[in-house]
Amino acid sequence: MEWSVFILFLGACCAAAATGSMFAPGEWYRQLVKPGWTPPDWLFPIAWTLLYLASAYAATRVAVLDGAAHAMGFWALQIALNTLWTPVFFGLERIRAGAVILVFLWIAVIGSMVTFLQLDMLAGALMIPYVIWVSYAGALNLAILRLNAGSTERSV
Amino acid sequence: MEWSVFILFLGACCAAAATGSMFAPGEWYRQLVKPGWTPPDWLFPIAWTLLYLASAYAATRVAVLDGAAHAMGFWALQIALNTLWTPVFFGLERIRAGAVILVFLWIAVIGSMVTFLQLDMLAGALMIPYVIWVSYAGALNLAILRLNAGSTERSV
Repeated sequence: MEWSVFILFLGACCAAAATGSMFAPGEWYRQLVKPGWTPPDWLFPIAWTLLYLASAYAATRVAVLDGAAHAMGFWALQIALNTLWTPVFFGLERIRAGAVILVFLWIAVIGSMVTFLQLDMLAGALMIPYVIWVSYAGALNLAILRLNAGSTERSV
Repeated sequence: MEWSVFILFLGACCAAAATGSMFAPGEWYRQLVKPGWTPPDWLFPIAWTLLYLASAYAATRVAVLDGAAHAMGFWALQIALNTLWTPVFFGLERIRAGAVILVFLWIAVIGSMVTFLQLDMLAGALMIPYVIWVSYAGALNLAILRLNAGSTERSV
């Protein structure tokens, strides 16, 4: 493995991960009406750590291959959207804007998985848990939007 | 030019740019003591629009070339750090953490420029204004940190 390439992609994941500690779920999130299938708070950092490691390793495998332009574009797009979601949802407390970002993130992660699969089977497979998790997170964000319609959305 | 690749990199820039409108400079920023060489507020969106377009185009030129793994890693790293800075500085009003992020961003943008220059002269040249702007923004963030030491930093 090209360790120096891995460090760069992992660094991008660390920037995204930093939002999780700086914009942590607070009183506002606890008071939201949430569906019964909402995961416990402790699961999020564990899931994200594994997903970031897998996606950074997958990107490293793909980056050294020919014809990886679209794959690299999708990966850059997903890490920027990933970094954006947390400050918008937990910082601004904007549930609707968070849902919009998650839809774009979902498309970007699926795009990464598909383009990775075309270049390297293992790299593509490593993106599948990420697709599942973002599908789940997107459904959760939409459910929270529906269950709290009008009551909690800030006007910012 | 590979337009579909350009759209992906430009989309990542749009995620970063969205922070500028969602975490806009407010009363807190206006009241900070700032150095005389602080640019006027209207210059920031113009500068960033040009820098995002140039860096997305540069990434598109490089992404289709062989041996672009480090270049793609640096570009992904800089767009994640770029997306992170605005919510931390304007959202959390954490000047010191903003300065730390800008130092990492500065390294990532220089890394992008150097690796781009090795693959494509024009792509590398297109990153030079970005390096200059982040150097300037970093100096500004550090000056604001020094001029407002202890008086404005939130304890979050």
